[in-house]
Amino acid sequence: MTVPSLCSPVVGRLEPYVPGEQPRIAGLVKLNTNENPYPPSPRAVAAIEAAAREGLQLYPDPQSLALRETIAAHHGLEAGQVFVGNGSDEVLAHAFFAFFQHAGQPLLMPDITYSFYRVYCRLWGIAPELQPLDEGLAIDVERIAARAAEGACAGIVLANPNAPTGMGLPLSQIERLLAACPQRVVLVDEAYVDFGGESAVSLVPRYPNLLVVHTLSKSRSLAGLRVGAAFGQRPLIDALERVKDSFNSYPLDRLAQAGARAAYEDVAYFDETRRAVMHSREGLALALEDLGFEVLPSQANFLFVRHPAHDGARLAAALRERAVLVRHFARPERIAQYLRISVGTPAQCDALVRALQAIV
Amino acid sequence: MTVPSLCSPVVGRLEPYVPGEQPRIAGLVKLNTNENPYPPSPRAVAAIEAAAREGLQLYPDPQSLALRETIAAHHGLEAGQVFVGNGSDEVLAHAFFAFFQHAGQPLLMPDITYSFYRVYCRLWGIAPELQPLDEGLAIDVERIAARAAEGACAGIVLANPNAPTGMGLPLSQIERLLAACPQRVVLVDEAYVDFGGESAVSLVPRYPNLLVVHTLSKSRSLAGLRVGAAFGQRPLIDALERVKDSFNSYPLDRLAQAGARAAYEDVAYFDETRRAVMHSREGLALALEDLGFEVLPSQANFLFVRHPAHDGARLAAALRERAVLVRHFARPERIAQYLRISVGTPAQCDALVRALQAIV
Repeated sequence: MTVPSLCSPVVGRLEPYVPGEQPRIAGLVKLNTNENPYPPSPRAVAAIEAAAREGLQLYPDPQSLALRETIAAHHGLEAGQVFVGNGSDEVLAHAFFAFFQHAGQPLLMPDITYSFYRVYCRLWGIAPELQPLDEGLAIDVERIAARAAEGACAGIVLANPNAPTGMGLPLSQIERLLAACPQRVVLVDEAYVDFGGESAVSLVPRYPNLLVVHTLSKSRSLAGLRVGAAFGQRPLIDALERVKDSFNSYPLDRLAQAGARAAYEDVAYFDETRRAVMHSREGLALALEDLGFEVLPSQANFLFVRHPAHDGARLAAALRERAVLVRHFARPERIAQYLRISVGTPAQCDALVRALQAIV
Repeated sequence: MTVPSLCSPVVGRLEPYVPGEQPRIAGLVKLNTNENPYPPSPRAVAAIEAAAREGLQLYPDPQSLALRETIAAHHGLEAGQVFVGNGSDEVLAHAFFAFFQHAGQPLLMPDITYSFYRVYCRLWGIAPELQPLDEGLAIDVERIAARAAEGACAGIVLANPNAPTGMGLPLSQIERLLAACPQRVVLVDEAYVDFGGESAVSLVPRYPNLLVVHTLSKSRSLAGLRVGAAFGQRPLIDALERVKDSFNSYPLDRLAQAGARAAYEDVAYFDETRRAVMHSREGLALALEDLGFEVLPSQANFLFVRHPAHDGARLAAALRERAVLVRHFARPERIAQYLRISVGTPAQCDALVRALQAIV
């Protein structure tokens, strides 16, 4: 990429993230971007409608205090231990800036994980040091802990459950990393944790170097609203606030603050819909195994699967011809035979299985 | 500010922006943050309500293409010449990153202007070079043009109309700067332009180094929705897209995209409300002059005024005691005697004038 000399030279060195397709095709079975197949809580929708009718000409609360108090209470924390942003991607961008810029020291991360982490490293000039997953595609905690204990690093970032594998680590393994890297932040990205993982938020009071990131895009069905959160002890949250207030004072609009708050308050709906997704996931996993697929154990709202007799890219293309969208990653080569399939409604899962029956 | 060693050292060097107060006091006459006193277009509210009921579990269009097409058509441009972000503050943050990082070369800006510009410089490590306003508090275009022509710089940023003075420059003066600095970007922040200023958007097709930034927070009464835009030739917009896609793929939620689009489509409402604000501004200026205030000529939705016999800070405090909020800047000293007063509804303006009559 060449950029004109009018631009900062760093622009030419960026490697922007490429989100999953958002096509507008009627009748499409869209299982490629890990959205929730269920709509958000009716209470969230009602809160947004009320906020739209009241005071939209006024700035929102720049500190999102009411929302932070609601989220904090949900997790047994205080508002000062919660940061919120315009989707967890913005929260992650600020966190990488605030915690991982240490004079060229490398940031430790799994080699196969959420691909935006490497994009942030490019953006802020951080050197990533990739730690290979083990043979079963699990995060190799012992390897990362040994590396952190052995020499200087800028910190550790990982997704738990990991993406795109869906595999989770128990909290004991997270504590192993926190103990191995006391001088740097360990960022645990729990975008998918509500679908069966163990959350490290409960560890926040005990570890000053822990930052946990959540999103409302998955388990609270609000991908269209753009709200994410981070949990940590006050010095870390204060640092994130300093970065945020140097970038954009008002990252969450009035509608997002109101809708997100109502979504957290409707615990019954949250539990009902995430359980429905987990139930569908187990049924889909069995159906795919019946078709000969290998299915990694998932604690997320998606499955990562491959078929010993069918090429991943060709399967994705064949599904697309049948109006079923799944995500295929051509790289790294080690996962090029896999498909990442979001768990849809029972009807969407059936449509996927029928299409695969016709193909394999 | 000391930050813990867990943080990136740069965090300690930041100087975060401090937004105007957003108190929740009933009956307050709030003239401190330049919000529009009128609600947004009913069509914008209806579009938001419709978007809230439809598909909020799905990601928004990461490119905001429909919105960009609407804004572009409004200005006679193409969608590829329009960038949108989460408020004009985010647009500015990305623009400073994309265009003004040039190996220590200084960024030229007025010494008295929107104070966030210096915050961005701290954030990205850009050196600001402050150019004093002239004796009448106008931007000294000849001085800046001469400086740009004389030696290396990272670019020029200015607000037109300027903040907090409200004074505007004619387009001929903007062209003078564009011609003096062809090798770098000239960023013209037109947050307040719709209240009587001359917009440089019409110059975009002729100047490859021009970037114009707009917001929907002021003239479209959508401070609570967080939408801003930038206009420039495609290479500049492409650079902003690269930065945005390295930071947050989905900065505008589904509600903001829908509401902003409807607000641009309702041209009649836009014209009606901005004319009402300009009409109130002229009446308020006369009333303040009757009270002995010096009033700078304003092309914005606020007035910048001082009273020869009354201290600025004390006036602001006395107004606050009467439940009227205006903005006072203690620094720089040259403007410490001024008040920045947002133009409210006729009733709000009357309340302000009555309070001042009691004070002065």
